Amino acid sequence: MKKPTAPASKSQPRGPLDHDVRTQIVEAAEEYFSHYGYEKTTVSDLAKAIGFSKAYIYKFFDSKQAIGEVICSGRLSMIMRAVDEATATVPNASERLRRMFSALVEAGSDLFFHDRKLYDLAAAAAGGSWPSARAHEDHVRQLIAQIIVEGRKLGEFERKTPLDETVNAILLVMRPYVNPLLLQHNLDFAAKATVQLSSLILRSLAP
Amino acid sequence: MKKPTAPASKSQPRGPLDHDVRTQIVEAAEEYFSHYGYEKTTVSDLAKAIGFSKAYIYKFFDSKQAIGEVICSGRLSMIMRAVDEATATVPNASERLRRMFSALVEAGSDLFFHDRKLYDLAAAAAGGSWPSARAHEDHVRQLIAQIIVEGRKLGEFERKTPLDETVNAILLVMRPYVNPLLLQHNLDFAAKATVQLSSLILRSLAP
Repeated sequence: MKKPTAPASKSQPRGPLDHDVRTQIVEAAEEYFSHYGYEKTTVSDLAKAIGFSKAYIYKFFDSKQAIGEVICSGRLSMIMRAVDEATATVPNASERLRRMFSALVEAGSDLFFHDRKLYDLAAAAAGGSWPSARAHEDHVRQLIAQIIVEGRKLGEFERKTPLDETVNAILLVMRPYVNPLLLQHNLDFAAKATVQLSSLILRSLAP
Repeated sequence: MKKPTAPASKSQPRGPLDHDVRTQIVEAAEEYFSHYGYEKTTVSDLAKAIGFSKAYIYKFFDSKQAIGEVICSGRLSMIMRAVDEATATVPNASERLRRMFSALVEAGSDLFFHDRKLYDLAAAAAGGSWPSARAHEDHVRQLIAQIIVEGRKLGEFERKTPLDETVNAILLVMRPYVNPLLLQHNLDFAAKATVQLSSLILRSLAP
């Protein structure tokens, strides 16, 4: 494990250097978690691996979960960037909804297969309703809402059902493939499922 | 734990008595599992509790799972009977679909809250794709198919989408609330979810 540069001394004011130390801790922790897993690692293990004292780490983070949160947020942001890229240039709302769903599942599966230990961290976050996981679900909800509003404006989608209900029901359909805690049980057929479920959702949106 | 009557001697031909012994083993195991959990129990524990030798139990069941299978099938049949009762007298297909979904979730949640250890057995069966769990999913699929065919005949539902695709997509929507492995993560909002998801499904079926 790469050893970070020497920590800031206590007498220094908080500032850019503190920010650097936080980043160093998070990066080292991400590497460590991805090798040994989040659940099995203690803050003492981390401190030893990074070469900081445990007390020093606690100056920057209240708990192991607080470090996990930063890592998790980072990974979930990467997933959302992949989704944004997959849907950005698509002009029609139906196709955007399809691509959004498949990109979410693809990025999630990717994390599962390529970084299983960090996936487990994301699953713990989802299972424990950590703020990072709730923020991710909110982000997905907002994206669905945007697409529905756009599709209603374009005349692609029906407008009778209250917007909130439509958005929430679609989120419920997607949730087993978006929430890492659930996706792991659905990976075998996730790709095929998203196609069929997108079609069902689009039939439900027909004007 | 109630001690069953004396086992049949080896020299006797297989017949009604064997059947009784099997039933005794299953009943005793169900009681034992519901106290101590399926995962933590060994066939030796069971044998000791029932008052049979381990070898004698193996004369009737190949493995602990084989006993678990019988118990699981019994519980899943109870769930399906509850669903049949809830839908039997409903004349219209839309309402049958709604009631079927909510009855499935209700019966599943009931097992979770009242017999948590046996619920865990059902979750293990679902996670391991045991025959009992696959048969249950097939049963649910058939029930959905029946309702869709009926609704198409009555003019309640659209007929353009291939029947198989419609049925499979609906099963996918219901699966997180029907499969015990997934339902346990969705219990908080399952009742509300079934209402919104039923409405979404019915919108997707509109002619």
